[in-house]
Amino acid sequence: MKKTDLLTPIGLFIGMTAMFLAIFSSTAGTGNLTDFLQVTSILIVLGGLTAAIFINFSLTDIKLMPRVFKEAFQTRNHDLRSLIDTFVDLSTKARREGLLALEAGLEEVEDPFIEKGVLLAVDGIEPDVIKDIMMAEVVAMEERHRKGRLVIEKAAEYAPAWGMIGTLVGLVLMLQNLNDPATLGPNMAVALLTTLYGTLLANLVFGPMGHKLMLSTEDEVFVKQIIIEGVIGVQSGQNPKVLQEKLAAFLPASSKKKEEEAPIGEPVSNE
Amino acid sequence: MKKTDLLTPIGLFIGMTAMFLAIFSSTAGTGNLTDFLQVTSILIVLGGLTAAIFINFSLTDIKLMPRVFKEAFQTRNHDLRSLIDTFVDLSTKARREGLLALEAGLEEVEDPFIEKGVLLAVDGIEPDVIKDIMMAEVVAMEERHRKGRLVIEKAAEYAPAWGMIGTLVGLVLMLQNLNDPATLGPNMAVALLTTLYGTLLANLVFGPMGHKLMLSTEDEVFVKQIIIEGVIGVQSGQNPKVLQEKLAAFLPASSKKKEEEAPIGEPVSNE
Amino acid sequence: MKKTDLLTPIGLFIGMTAMFLAIFSSTAGTGNLTDFLQVTSILIVLGGLTAAIFINFSLTDIKLMPRVFKEAFQTRNHDLRSLIDTFVDLSTKARREGLLALEAGLEEVEDPFIEKGVLLAVDGIEPDVIKDIMMAEVVAMEERHRKGRLVIEKAAEYAPAWGMIGTLVGLVLMLQNLNDPATLGPNMAVALLTTLYGTLLANLVFGPMGHKLMLSTEDEVFVKQIIIEGVIGVQSGQNPKVLQEKLAAFLPASSKKKEEEAPIGEPVSNE
Amino acid sequence: MKKTDLLTPIGLFIGMTAMFLAIFSSTAGTGNLTDFLQVTSILIVLGGLTAAIFINFSLTDIKLMPRVFKEAFQTRNHDLRSLIDTFVDLSTKARREGLLALEAGLEEVEDPFIEKGVLLAVDGIEPDVIKDIMMAEVVAMEERHRKGRLVIEKAAEYAPAWGMIGTLVGLVLMLQNLNDPATLGPNMAVALLTTLYGTLLANLVFGPMGHKLMLSTEDEVFVKQIIIEGVIGVQSGQNPKVLQEKLAAFLPASSKKKEEEAPIGEPVSNE
Amino acid sequence: MKKTDLLTPIGLFIGMTAMFLAIFSSTAGTGNLTDFLQVTSILIVLGGLTAAIFINFSLTDIKLMPRVFKEAFQTRNHDLRSLIDTFVDLSTKARREGLLALEAGLEEVEDPFIEKGVLLAVDGIEPDVIKDIMMAEVVAMEERHRKGRLVIEKAAEYAPAWGMIGTLVGLVLMLQNLNDPATLGPNMAVALLTTLYGTLLANLVFGPMGHKLMLSTEDEVFVKQIIIEGVIGVQSGQNPKVLQEKLAAFLPASSKKKEEEAPIGEPVSNE
Repeated sequence: MKKTDLLTPIGLFIGMTAMFLAIFSSTAGTGNLTDFLQVTSILIVLGGLTAAIFINFSLTDIKLMPRVFKEAFQTRNHDLRSLIDTFVDLSTKARREGLLALEAGLEEVEDPFIEKGVLLAVDGIEPDVIKDIMMAEVVAMEERHRKGRLVIEKAAEYAPAWGMIGTLVGLVLMLQNLNDPATLGPNMAVALLTTLYGTLLANLVFGPMGHKLMLSTEDEVFVKQIIIEGVIGVQSGQNPKVLQEKLAAFLPASSKKKEEEAPIGEPVSNE
Repeated sequence: MKKTDLLTPIGLFIGMTAMFLAIFSSTAGTGNLTDFLQVTSILIVLGGLTAAIFINFSLTDIKLMPRVFKEAFQTRNHDLRSLIDTFVDLSTKARREGLLALEAGLEEVEDPFIEKGVLLAVDGIEPDVIKDIMMAEVVAMEERHRKGRLVIEKAAEYAPAWGMIGTLVGLVLMLQNLNDPATLGPNMAVALLTTLYGTLLANLVFGPMGHKLMLSTEDEVFVKQIIIEGVIGVQSGQNPKVLQEKLAAFLPASSKKKEEEAPIGEPVSNE
Repeated sequence: MKKTDLLTPIGLFIGMTAMFLAIFSSTAGTGNLTDFLQVTSILIVLGGLTAAIFINFSLTDIKLMPRVFKEAFQTRNHDLRSLIDTFVDLSTKARREGLLALEAGLEEVEDPFIEKGVLLAVDGIEPDVIKDIMMAEVVAMEERHRKGRLVIEKAAEYAPAWGMIGTLVGLVLMLQNLNDPATLGPNMAVALLTTLYGTLLANLVFGPMGHKLMLSTEDEVFVKQIIIEGVIGVQSGQNPKVLQEKLAAFLPASSKKKEEEAPIGEPVSNE
Repeated sequence: MKKTDLLTPIGLFIGMTAMFLAIFSSTAGTGNLTDFLQVTSILIVLGGLTAAIFINFSLTDIKLMPRVFKEAFQTRNHDLRSLIDTFVDLSTKARREGLLALEAGLEEVEDPFIEKGVLLAVDGIEPDVIKDIMMAEVVAMEERHRKGRLVIEKAAEYAPAWGMIGTLVGLVLMLQNLNDPATLGPNMAVALLTTLYGTLLANLVFGPMGHKLMLSTEDEVFVKQIIIEGVIGVQSGQNPKVLQEKLAAFLPASSKKKEEEAPIGEPVSNE
Repeated sequence: MKKTDLLTPIGLFIGMTAMFLAIFSSTAGTGNLTDFLQVTSILIVLGGLTAAIFINFSLTDIKLMPRVFKEAFQTRNHDLRSLIDTFVDLSTKARREGLLALEAGLEEVEDPFIEKGVLLAVDGIEPDVIKDIMMAEVVAMEERHRKGRLVIEKAAEYAPAWGMIGTLVGLVLMLQNLNDPATLGPNMAVALLTTLYGTLLANLVFGPMGHKLMLSTEDEVFVKQIIIEGVIGVQSGQNPKVLQEKLAAFLPASSKKKEEEAPIGEPVSNE
């Protein structure tokens, strides 16, 4: 269900292009890309950022960072409609052949979370307990994601501060060496570069990525909640049509339209 | 019930007029509109903004943006008094001819949410369950709106940051090319324009729009809550006068005055 | 119970005086009041502010603004001690002559909220229901006040931003016209004026007023909660002395001292 | 139990000393204290601050300010261990001689809150009701403290803003009078002084004081909660040893060590 | 279980190295370390910080600071897997030899919190009461840590403000002594150093340390919650396999994989 999220690299590309455009098409003179690459400035921003992150987190948290980064380049395609169909099928089968028959068809279900839920239902665990067990797993997932995301969010917080620290260092150095007025401009430009790097890191990389990770966790929690509702519905032997109606209420308005054309009260009165 | 919200275009017009006035009536010299149009600056702010939004959100969220934008130019005219009258009528009818008689007159009710509620009531669903089903829909609507609004809110957050990034780029370029003092002023002016664009986008467009969308969602939730109360009241066969009293409590003070002149305790003691 | 709140005009006067003092007693040269009045700067701040408010709110909300403004110049004199006395009298009367006797003496009670509560009590509504009805009114009032206040609070938020926008416009104009060095200072002064206006509006007018409105809403909610407790106490036939004790617990420490001299446990054991 | 809190004056002294040191030991020239005293700047910061506070609050709130200020120079010495001993004694006495015997020994108890609680217990009020009555008093105290503290907290918020307003006024005046370059430096210095005053007020006086008041309210609430637990324990005739154990759980780790050396399970199994 | 947390000193080292690199490899001239050491600047930042902290806190809180600092250099190695094994062993023993047999083997358990829990279980206290007692201890620990951390967090808040105050003092001094243009640069450099110190303290020392302390408190609370679940499980005579399953749900995804290969429904159906 995971696939590459093209939006993240496209966004990074657009951001860098906007920067390059600004540099080359500048009216202030022939912009030169090398003017914008300053190893020392990069070192101080990245070094300071690393320092702050090291002090801020434990090794376990920091080790999560590459995986979390990778996650920001991936998207999960939640096909809610086919998810609902899965539960309508399971519900139909359960009403015809009994709950125990569900265990046999589970190989077709890819999602381990659905599988786990159905197995719990087959084992005759009470609905409340099933909900508790599955929600506990959802909460644990949310917590794990929150921790991984925190490293990114803190990086977005420290990056501009370290950019400013680098600029202050540069300004102090510049002001101590005012003898040659010709170097004033370039030296100040170099000092400002650190702020530019810090702000870019925060507003192009860490800030948006941290927020995308939050939204994707929200999505996943949402899908898992539908699954929990579905499992409970299947176990309690709910009418497949009612179950479909109930799960469809989770869908966004656009994809729900078809259902709404049918009078809403009907399925209920059919029971 | 939707109609064009003139306030949004009027507001944008006033904001732009204030800007133009400031530019043309300036004492600092003959303000020139072209001095304030800088393609590169526009490119870097919009490009950076797009980049941050792309990384921040998924495609589904971004696709919502045009619709959400349109929404900020629309207003919903909630005629609360006629809404209450609708429920007083429904309640009178239900007490005279029974709940089932309501189904016949539903064509006249325009709002699908009222229709859904009344149908649930006619079907004899218990009040608590009706409330749950209808509230679930309200919560889902709130959540959908929140997601759409988030893109606008994040744009208001990234716009000034990218304005500052553009200004930093401009300053670095200017400082690297200090040879000709005559270009210093204009180059710095151009650098500052990016900050101006970013701040304008945040404080004239994205910020106020995002907030208007929040307020209009709040309004809609409020109206839906009155409807839920009304449906429950109709189903439980409440005295139409009592129901009117109860729903009128939701009205703002100004439009409530007439009711308050009648002694408040009476309708209750009349029961 | 409303009377003019002198503190708001006095505060505005002190703030303006401090400004004038700073301008006239300045060591930087003979301060001139006209140097600080710049029609364009005023136009851009007020225009931009209006623009942002128009986009941010609906017409209904904006229409509230004059009334909300007037409210910031009014204070409500809540005489808590006489409020408690009212309930002690009502309670004594209710125990002697029965709850129904209260209806006769209600003309003397000025506060419509007390009147409403007592009428509900006389009608024999259950305490829980009375509490619900009255709290619903309190919550609705809080919500109405919050909405009106929001316009002021948002104005306090947009004012400095539009001050900065005006300053940026001024700086760009100034930098584009650097030919005559003599105009540099005055032009920059004019540019800074917009920031001054915006900051003044936020920190002298909108900010403090918005906060005063919040505090006065809190006060009103507090008084209404005492009234609700009083009505419930009267209805349940509580001993007047116990009721007085109970309501006095709401009073601030300073005005409570007299009561505390009497041993606290006594009234209870007297029952 | 109140005594002078030396930390507040010591802190103010250290802060002022650091300022003086910075001024006198400066390498930038012979620092002169009179350069840092500017009556106009003080007037505008204090005047503006007073203006904002007057508009922000009601007279009742502002009148609290001197008392609240005094409170920031006082500390309360909560001897938790002797507090627990008091309850162990009360509990022992109650078990031996009955609850009524407690009333006689109350003169020795200094804290009126303990006295009130014990009297309620002696009167045979039910534990839940005692808890409600006492908690209501704690909540009311918290609310009163919050209101008094709010004036300080708002002052910390407005002080830097008015410092900036003063600086803007100074800059405008300076820029309008650029004729004599020799005055540029000193005039700008004077303009910056207002920002310095505002920042100092916020970060040396109002900010830390407001926060200390919050912490001391938290402490007081904590002590009152131990007292409530103790009163309930005494009334329910709990074993003194168990009560001691229970109340000791509230103590900070450092002062708890002695108890922990004794096996924790024992007192319970001894019952 | 505590051991030195190398990440904090490594982070501090990386941060300082980045600073030195920036200073020495600067293109703006031969960076000189002594240019960056300014006793007055250090005095004003540390003095002001101490002043604000003294006014902000009580002596008890400030005395916690060295211990809290030390804590930021320590890490706790929570071996969750061996923790679960401990409870599986205890559970097996309890089912075979009875709860009372557990008391004998307690010497092997190092963690006093587990010991306390098991003793409570052995004493036959009810599960709800055990949970309450143990949770009360966890909450108290959280509160103690929060208080200690608050000093660090407030220091991170005041450090940049006092850096700015120092810079303002320096700027005022510089502007008052503009006679010798040659000193302008160095004097301004010195003024900026205070801001640099304040920002460094906030973003390298206090900010990250305060946050690490928060995360390590969260970790400890998490481990204690597993222990509470384990104790309750042991007391209620839960099947060791089920208990292992239940506690393993707390583990992060990576270390959980092995368990998940076994069908999840099984252990439950085995009961």
